[in-house]
Amino acid sequence: MQLDQKQCEAFRVAIERGSLEQAATALHVTPSAISQRIRALEASLGRPLLVRSRPCRATPDGQALLQYVQRAALLEADLVARFTEGEEALLTVPVAVNADSVASWFLPAVAPFLIAQRVLLDVTVDDQDHTYQLLQAGLALGCISTEAQPMRGCVAEPLGVMRYRAMASADFMQRWFPDGVSRERLRHAPVMVFNRKDRLQADFLQQHFGLSDQAWPRHYLPASEPFLQAVRLGLGWGMLPEVQVGGLADCNGLHDLLPAHPVDVGLYWHSWKVQSPRLEHLSRTLVQAGQRMLRPL
Amino acid sequence: MQLDQKQCEAFRVAIERGSLEQAATALHVTPSAISQRIRALEASLGRPLLVRSRPCRATPDGQALLQYVQRAALLEADLVARFTEGEEALLTVPVAVNADSVASWFLPAVAPFLIAQRVLLDVTVDDQDHTYQLLQAGLALGCISTEAQPMRGCVAEPLGVMRYRAMASADFMQRWFPDGVSRERLRHAPVMVFNRKDRLQADFLQQHFGLSDQAWPRHYLPASEPFLQAVRLGLGWGMLPEVQVGGLADCNGLHDLLPAHPVDVGLYWHSWKVQSPRLEHLSRTLVQAGQRMLRPL
Repeated sequence: MQLDQKQCEAFRVAIERGSLEQAATALHVTPSAISQRIRALEASLGRPLLVRSRPCRATPDGQALLQYVQRAALLEADLVARFTEGEEALLTVPVAVNADSVASWFLPAVAPFLIAQRVLLDVTVDDQDHTYQLLQAGLALGCISTEAQPMRGCVAEPLGVMRYRAMASADFMQRWFPDGVSRERLRHAPVMVFNRKDRLQADFLQQHFGLSDQAWPRHYLPASEPFLQAVRLGLGWGMLPEVQVGGLADCNGLHDLLPAHPVDVGLYWHSWKVQSPRLEHLSRTLVQAGQRMLRPL
Repeated sequence: MQLDQKQCEAFRVAIERGSLEQAATALHVTPSAISQRIRALEASLGRPLLVRSRPCRATPDGQALLQYVQRAALLEADLVARFTEGEEALLTVPVAVNADSVASWFLPAVAPFLIAQRVLLDVTVDDQDHTYQLLQAGLALGCISTEAQPMRGCVAEPLGVMRYRAMASADFMQRWFPDGVSRERLRHAPVMVFNRKDRLQADFLQQHFGLSDQAWPRHYLPASEPFLQAVRLGLGWGMLPEVQVGGLADCNGLHDLLPAHPVDVGLYWHSWKVQSPRLEHLSRTLVQAGQRMLRPL
């Protein structure tokens, strides 16, 4: 059995964009052409691949196919690059990275490699506990995740620990904690929360002060640099990564609510065991940079 | 007819979280309790409100209900605040803001107001052409959008123009445009693109160089500050907002590919005509700040 490339591409783009209509626009064909190709692919593999919801998504068989298609495309591109030195040899790697890594150590770590090796990144940003799902779904070929267990066929390499501290501006401390940080005060002081997947602040309040998730007011602000800016502006206190605020020595007027209780989040780089030489090189670069720039795991 | 608050809340949280299971977790009840409440609500209104897809979403009637529920909650909270001075008077406003505004002028503009008026923000970040859909969907009470036409019952106030320039690092210019910017070179130089909704770079290449969307290599990086960092690191050229790079006078070694051809994006603040006093105050603050910090529309 041989896979039809056009059919596979129609399927991949439909999952990527979330609908047959958008896949059709991207590939400059009609939606019914996309639909036919996917149905033909399902017929030739004898399994349903696409759940026709909004957005559409892949069945478990569809996910396995997608993982395969992404990896095969990368292997082929890498081979072609060997034969066509120069301009055409760019390679695109889909990766899923947690927001705080993207906002701090990730880009400086990989930029020289990307430029020298002519690699393009297709980055998806998600919560560190959710990037792994994108690897499973076949939408990423590598991911940075808190998950230590590798998926079947993959390896998980330790990158290091991102240490978070509960920080607030001097002016916020004055306003909300004039007599020091207490459970009672924490029930009323606004908290910065990244989004509804972000459990860092909730777990911290639960663990150290026994405060339930419903007990405190919050802003939601799903962007890393603005999140730091909001803490600086005194909108709320929030868990900030040390690598982002520049360590304790240089926290520019930010105060640590509980200096003795930082929160450590271990990060792992997940990638496939059998992979293209350039993706292997990217993995090595990332793991070395993580070990240099993060705390040891 | 009177709306049942618990039923409305079950419906709102299900749409917010995307599934009955997650709504159940958030509200500390069983999924079947959530399902029953929503069905009871549909029965009492005589219309289907929820499309039971993954993620679940609201029907047009469901969207109208959500818009109403969000606004009513805000009006009530504002009234309660009049009677309970002090600690309890916090108000949460769901807003949808484009990523580049969040990363530049938005927070400094609203922070003093939020602190003084005890307003919490629930920010959703999306592309400037898509924030409007969140207002329509009843998931935001206000939004910053490129859309100039207000939705029924809403007003659209001009904030100003964000001016984008096609920027690259000195080292990128040297590597890809040693003899100047040309159509031929632009076919090979990597481009920074925010995500698949971002048309800024594609439109620029189409308009000034007649290059189609498929013709050039790209990184996808859906985070504003890292996007700017990637341009600085020489990963690609990209459209950067002047307010973010600090204007032409201070662009720190970044070069403008076509200084005579900036791209102007007009932004509008959309909010409901009938709204709570504090949301009205937020609107005024935003419009004044936009007019101060952006170019005139």
